[in-house]
Amino acid sequence: MAGSMFGNIFKITTWGESHGKALGVVIDGCPAGLMLDENDIQLYLNRRKPGQSSISTPRKESDQVEILSGVFEGKTTGTPISLLVPNTSQKSSDYNEIATYYRPGHADYTFDAKYGFRDYTGGGRSSGRETIGRVAAGAVAAKILKEMGITITAYTKSIGPVEIDYANYKKENIYTTATCMPDAKADQKALEYLQKCMSAKDSSGGVIECIAEGIPAGIGDPVFEKLDANLGKAILSIGAIKAVEIGDGIMSAKSTGSVNNDAFVCKNGKIHKKTNHSGGVLGGISDGAQLVLRAYVKPTPSIFSPQETVNKENQNIEIAIKGRHDPVIVPRAVVVVEAMAALTILDACMMNMTARLDYLTGFYQK
Amino acid sequence: MAGSMFGNIFKITTWGESHGKALGVVIDGCPAGLMLDENDIQLYLNRRKPGQSSISTPRKESDQVEILSGVFEGKTTGTPISLLVPNTSQKSSDYNEIATYYRPGHADYTFDAKYGFRDYTGGGRSSGRETIGRVAAGAVAAKILKEMGITITAYTKSIGPVEIDYANYKKENIYTTATCMPDAKADQKALEYLQKCMSAKDSSGGVIECIAEGIPAGIGDPVFEKLDANLGKAILSIGAIKAVEIGDGIMSAKSTGSVNNDAFVCKNGKIHKKTNHSGGVLGGISDGAQLVLRAYVKPTPSIFSPQETVNKENQNIEIAIKGRHDPVIVPRAVVVVEAMAALTILDACMMNMTARLDYLTGFYQK
Amino acid sequence: MAGSMFGNIFKITTWGESHGKALGVVIDGCPAGLMLDENDIQLYLNRRKPGQSSISTPRKESDQVEILSGVFEGKTTGTPISLLVPNTSQKSSDYNEIATYYRPGHADYTFDAKYGFRDYTGGGRSSGRETIGRVAAGAVAAKILKEMGITITAYTKSIGPVEIDYANYKKENIYTTATCMPDAKADQKALEYLQKCMSAKDSSGGVIECIAEGIPAGIGDPVFEKLDANLGKAILSIGAIKAVEIGDGIMSAKSTGSVNNDAFVCKNGKIHKKTNHSGGVLGGISDGAQLVLRAYVKPTPSIFSPQETVNKENQNIEIAIKGRHDPVIVPRAVVVVEAMAALTILDACMMNMTARLDYLTGFYQK
Amino acid sequence: MAGSMFGNIFKITTWGESHGKALGVVIDGCPAGLMLDENDIQLYLNRRKPGQSSISTPRKESDQVEILSGVFEGKTTGTPISLLVPNTSQKSSDYNEIATYYRPGHADYTFDAKYGFRDYTGGGRSSGRETIGRVAAGAVAAKILKEMGITITAYTKSIGPVEIDYANYKKENIYTTATCMPDAKADQKALEYLQKCMSAKDSSGGVIECIAEGIPAGIGDPVFEKLDANLGKAILSIGAIKAVEIGDGIMSAKSTGSVNNDAFVCKNGKIHKKTNHSGGVLGGISDGAQLVLRAYVKPTPSIFSPQETVNKENQNIEIAIKGRHDPVIVPRAVVVVEAMAALTILDACMMNMTARLDYLTGFYQK
Repeated sequence: MAGSMFGNIFKITTWGESHGKALGVVIDGCPAGLMLDENDIQLYLNRRKPGQSSISTPRKESDQVEILSGVFEGKTTGTPISLLVPNTSQKSSDYNEIATYYRPGHADYTFDAKYGFRDYTGGGRSSGRETIGRVAAGAVAAKILKEMGITITAYTKSIGPVEIDYANYKKENIYTTATCMPDAKADQKALEYLQKCMSAKDSSGGVIECIAEGIPAGIGDPVFEKLDANLGKAILSIGAIKAVEIGDGIMSAKSTGSVNNDAFVCKNGKIHKKTNHSGGVLGGISDGAQLVLRAYVKPTPSIFSPQETVNKENQNIEIAIKGRHDPVIVPRAVVVVEAMAALTILDACMMNMTARLDYLTGFYQK
Repeated sequence: MAGSMFGNIFKITTWGESHGKALGVVIDGCPAGLMLDENDIQLYLNRRKPGQSSISTPRKESDQVEILSGVFEGKTTGTPISLLVPNTSQKSSDYNEIATYYRPGHADYTFDAKYGFRDYTGGGRSSGRETIGRVAAGAVAAKILKEMGITITAYTKSIGPVEIDYANYKKENIYTTATCMPDAKADQKALEYLQKCMSAKDSSGGVIECIAEGIPAGIGDPVFEKLDANLGKAILSIGAIKAVEIGDGIMSAKSTGSVNNDAFVCKNGKIHKKTNHSGGVLGGISDGAQLVLRAYVKPTPSIFSPQETVNKENQNIEIAIKGRHDPVIVPRAVVVVEAMAALTILDACMMNMTARLDYLTGFYQK
Repeated sequence: MAGSMFGNIFKITTWGESHGKALGVVIDGCPAGLMLDENDIQLYLNRRKPGQSSISTPRKESDQVEILSGVFEGKTTGTPISLLVPNTSQKSSDYNEIATYYRPGHADYTFDAKYGFRDYTGGGRSSGRETIGRVAAGAVAAKILKEMGITITAYTKSIGPVEIDYANYKKENIYTTATCMPDAKADQKALEYLQKCMSAKDSSGGVIECIAEGIPAGIGDPVFEKLDANLGKAILSIGAIKAVEIGDGIMSAKSTGSVNNDAFVCKNGKIHKKTNHSGGVLGGISDGAQLVLRAYVKPTPSIFSPQETVNKENQNIEIAIKGRHDPVIVPRAVVVVEAMAALTILDACMMNMTARLDYLTGFYQK
Repeated sequence: MAGSMFGNIFKITTWGESHGKALGVVIDGCPAGLMLDENDIQLYLNRRKPGQSSISTPRKESDQVEILSGVFEGKTTGTPISLLVPNTSQKSSDYNEIATYYRPGHADYTFDAKYGFRDYTGGGRSSGRETIGRVAAGAVAAKILKEMGITITAYTKSIGPVEIDYANYKKENIYTTATCMPDAKADQKALEYLQKCMSAKDSSGGVIECIAEGIPAGIGDPVFEKLDANLGKAILSIGAIKAVEIGDGIMSAKSTGSVNNDAFVCKNGKIHKKTNHSGGVLGGISDGAQLVLRAYVKPTPSIFSPQETVNKENQNIEIAIKGRHDPVIVPRAVVVVEAMAALTILDACMMNMTARLDYLTGFYQK
C-alpha cells in the first residue's frame, strides 16, 4: 500500500531515504498563479537542518532544494511541482554494524517484519530525513495560506521538565533559539537540561505547540474528515510523535461542561467566543478562534548508553549506539509540525469551496 | 467535500441525522464468505444504546438494525452491505427553541457557518446518533478481525477524577457496569461523582482506553499511513474527543530514551519486547506487542446550568438547556472507539497483503 | 476492494441486488442549499423502468424512491443524502435453475471465480437493477448542473442496423418513443427490427449518444484526470457497454490532421471553434464546444435460443433461458448514460474550483 | 485538483514538462523484493524515443532514466521509487512564436482557459513527453506482472487506411518495424502512406491493439471499478486517443446475442469459452480469456499546412507550424498503451487479494 501520499486536493507524494541519492516531493494540485522560487522553500528547509547548535548533530546536511517542474516564468502552472534535495554528505559506512541488529525505539525491526529486509543505512525511509519532503511541500502550502490570510506558527513548548512561560513569549525567539522556544529563559534552562541528558548518555522528549490564525469559521467536514481528525493524522504521522491534542485536549477529560464550554458573544455584529477551550474546532469544523494543537514527542531513541537487543542470528546482545545524534528531536520537528498543519489546513480550505450550492452557481455563472 | 467515508479497502459511508427517518452505513469492500446476520451487529449497537442506567438519558432508542444488501444465504457476497437503523422515537418538537440560538460546545454555530443553515433537530448530523453507522460497520470489521486472530477491547479508564485500578480489572465488568469500567469499585465511585455533577447541573469528561491483541508485527505503512496516524484520525473523528495517545503517549514527552526505549529479546526463537512504552507501534508499523491507545473525552456540552450565547438576531442571551442529557459521554463512546479501531486495523491488515512481491507471486501462482 | 464508489468530491456509493430487500445510493459531498424532493429523482428513475412498451420486459418494477437523510426543510444540508428504492415484485423462484449453470454473456462465471459463490437471483449485484443507484444520484447531479447552466441529453442513436437521421431530430421524442430515439421514423423501423429479433429468439445491440451543453472551457484536469478519461470510465462501468468514443472517436483514426483539427475563430471578442471533431475536449480539458460522446452497447445476453454452457458439475449442457427479457438494452440504458455523464461533469466542475490561486484568494478574502 | 496520480494500491505520480529540467514519476505502493535496475526501465523508455526512423522527429531525446530511491542492494524496498529522466536537448527558442497563438488540435487554448496562462515551450505538461513517467512506471508494473504470469503486448493495428493482416503476425516485428506493426508488409504500405501524408503537409491517425495473457478469471471489481472501465480510463487518459473498445467493442452494437455471447465449455475439468467476443471481461471481471482492447488515435495535430486560428490579441490569423513533427502518433504511443494497461491490471490484481475472507484468514493464520 502506498503510504507516502497525503491530501485530498493539494496532494503530495514524498520519497527518498536517508542515504540514497536524493529526497524529494511531488505536489499535485497546487493552484496556478503562485509566485514561487527555491528560496521560498529553502527558508523552511533551513529550519530543520542539523549542525546549527550544541544540541544538534554536527552532520553537515546542506539540503539545497531544486524545483524541477510546475513553475514557469516564476509562477506555478497548476501542474505537478517536483522538488528535489540531493543527499551530499551521507556516509553509509557508519551503518554496517546497525545492519546486524535491531535498534530499540527505531523502526528496524518493524520494517524487517513488514518487508522482509530493510535499507539499514541511516534508517533508510524511516529516517528523520524523510521529513524533507513534508517541509518542502509545507512551505508551498504555507505561502498559499498566507495569501489567504492564514498563518501558522509552531514552537517548542517544553523539553523534558522545562516549559516555556507565555509571559516571556517573543515570536522571533522561535527562529533564533537552539530549542525553538519563544521564551529565551526557558531555552537556556532547556539547554542545561539537555547537557545533563548528554552527559548521562541519555535523551529527552518534549512538546511542540502549533497555532493557526485567520482560519474562518466553517473549515473542516463533519464525521470522518473533521479538521482536528485530519490534523491529528498529519501530526501523528511524524516519526516520534506519540500523542496529539486540540485545545484543552487532555485536560478536558478532567474538566466539567460549565468550565469547558466556550460562551458565544456578539460584538459589533460579529460572533466570537469568550474563551477557547475547544482550540478553534467545534464538531470538527473551525469556529473562527485560534486553532491550537500540541504534539508530544518521545525522546530520541539513539542513545549512547548500553541497550539490550537482538541480532540477525536471534542472539540477545548488548549494544552501544555510535555516531552523533541529537539529544532531543523536538527543535528540528517544530517546522515539520508547522508544515503538516499547513498542508492539512490548506486542503480543508480547498475542500470547503464546494460546500454550498451558491458557491458553485456564483463561480460558474459569473 | 465528502466527509462521511472512511477506509481505503474496507470502505464505509455513514449517513443519517438524529431526527431523520433513519441512519445507516454502506460497507464497500467487505470480503466475500463471512457468515453475517443482524445479531452480529445488534450486539454492538446495544452497547451504545441510551436509557440503560441512571447516568444515561431515558430517551428510548430501540436501534434495530436491518441488513438490506450484500448478504446471501447467510454469507457476505463481496458486494456492498447496506445497514439501516430506523429512527423511531425522535420528537422534533423539543428542538424548536434550539433552532434560534447556538448551544455552547456544540456544532450549531460551525454548521451554520459552513452550510448557511442547519438541521437543528437533535443536532442533525452532528448528533451522537451519527455513531450508529460507525458501530454497525465496526461490528462487521471486528468479526473479520476475530477470524484473523485479532481482538479489540475498549473500556472506560477514568471519569473526571476517578480512575480505574488495574488490580481490580475484570473484563466482564466492561459490559455490565454503567460506566463501562472494568473495575467495579471505580465504577461506583464514578457514579457518585456523576451524581454530584448532575446535582450541580454540570457534566464530566473522561478517558477511554483501547487495547488490540493479536496484531502481527508489520501492519501499517511508513510515512503518512502509519498505523498510529490512522488510528489517531479514526479516534479524533469521534465527536467530543480532544486528544489521543499511543502507548506512553503524553508521558513520553517527559521521559528519557533510556526509559522509553523498549529492549528486544529473543526467547524460543521468537523476538519480542521486554516493555511496551511504544504501545505496539514503531515507525508507524505494528511491533507485535499489544496495541495501546487512549482517547480523551470532553464533558457533555449540554448542561442545565445557565450559559451565555448568541441568538439568530445576534443578540447576547442567556440560555438553560432542557431535555435529558447524559452527564458524561464516555460510557456510550467506548464501543465507538472499539469500532473505529477495528475499522482502522482491518483496513491496515488488508493494505499489508501486497507489501511484498512474494505475497503476490504466492497468491497468483498457486 | 470497494467497487461501488464513484467520484472525487461529489462521491456516491451504490448498493443493492436485483432480488434483495432494496437498492439505493448514498451521495456524500452534495453542496448544501439545493431544493430537492423525491419527485426530482423519481422523474429520472421512471425513465429506466421496464414494462413500458412492447420491447420492454413486462416485469412490474414500481421503483419508488425515498429520501432518508441529507434534506431538511426541502433543502440539502451538505451531509450525506441516502436514497432508497425497495424491491417489491421480485420472484426469486424464477432463478433456481440459473443457480446451477453459467449463462453465456452474463457475469455468473466471473462472480463465482472472484468470490467463490454468487447471489444467483436475477443476477444479484450484476443485474441491470444495479443502475437504480446511479440514476438516482445522477438526477441530483443533473439538477445541480442545471443551476450552473449545464444540460446533458442522451438518446438512442442506433439499434442494430437502424440509425437515426438528424434531420428528423426532435428532442421530445427521446422521452416518448419506445426506443428513446429522437427520430420517430427511425423508432418505427427499429421496433420492426426488434420484432424480427424476438421472433428469431435473438437480441440486438445499439449505440447511445450523449451531448452536454454549457460546459465552460477549462473543465477537466491534465494527464490522468482528463474529462474524457473520466467520462470513459463512467460510461464503460455501465454493464453491456463495450466501447466509448469522444467526438469523431473511431473515425479520427482514419482521418488526417488537416481535416480533424478544429480551427479557432474569434467573433465578437469570443473564441470558439469552427468545427467540433474533438467533441468538446482538447488535452483532456473542455474547449467550450458541445461535449459529444457515444456508448456502444452489446446485445442483451439473455436470449431464448438454445445455448451451450457448463453446469455446476462441470458438465457441458445446452440451455434455453426462460422468463421475459428485453430484446435490446439500449433504451433503458439511455438515462444511465445521462446520469453517469452528469456525475462525472459535476465532479470535474467542482475539482476545477481550486485550479487557480486567485480563485482561492477571491473566495477567502471576500 | 491533482490530475497526475493513477492507481489505488500501486499508485504513481508523474511530473514534468516538455522543456523543463527533467520529467519523472514516483511509484508508491510497489511491493518489496523485486529485483530492479535502470535497465529494466530503460528498455521501455527506448521504445518511445523519437529519432529512430523516417517517420519520427529527428529531435534527439536521450531519455536516460535514473533511480533515485526505493531500491536497495538491487531490490525494491517497499518505499517510494523515484525515477527521473533529465531533459537534455530541448530548445525553447523554437516555441516563442507558439506563445502568441493557439495551435488547432492542441491543448494551448484549454490550458489557458483553465489556468490563466500556460508553459508554451513544447506544450509544457500537455506534451507527449509527459508519457515518460507513465512508461517508466509501466515498466516496473510489467516486470511484476511477468513474475505473476501475466504478459501484455501492444502493437499498431492500423495507420490511416492500412491495416495489419493477422496471417503475417510476427511478434518480433513490433519491436523492429518503424510503425510497430507485427506485419512487415503492412508496415511497408503504412510507411508509403505516411510519406504521402508528409508530402501533403498532413498527418494520419491509427489504431493500437493491446492483448493481455495470463490474467486469471476473477480480476476487476463490480460496478464502478470494472476492469474494462479502469482500462478505458487509463487508455483515454493518453493524449490523442479518442475511443477505446473491449473485445468486439464497436461491432457488438451491430451484433446479435446469439452471435455475441461466448459459449462456456468444460475440457479436462477446466472451464473456458469457445469464442472471445467479450474480450476477456464479463460484468467487469476477467473471464480467463485473452484481454483484448483497442485504442483509436487521432492524427498528429501539428501539421505544416496553413491553418486558421486566433492569436493573443484575439485576431483571426493563419499559421503554418514549423519544426519537425511525427506524421503519426501511433508507433510511439504503442508502449504507452502497454504501460497503462500494465499499471491498471497490476492494480486490479492487488485489489483482488482481499476479495474473500479465506484469503485474509489464509494469509494471517499461516
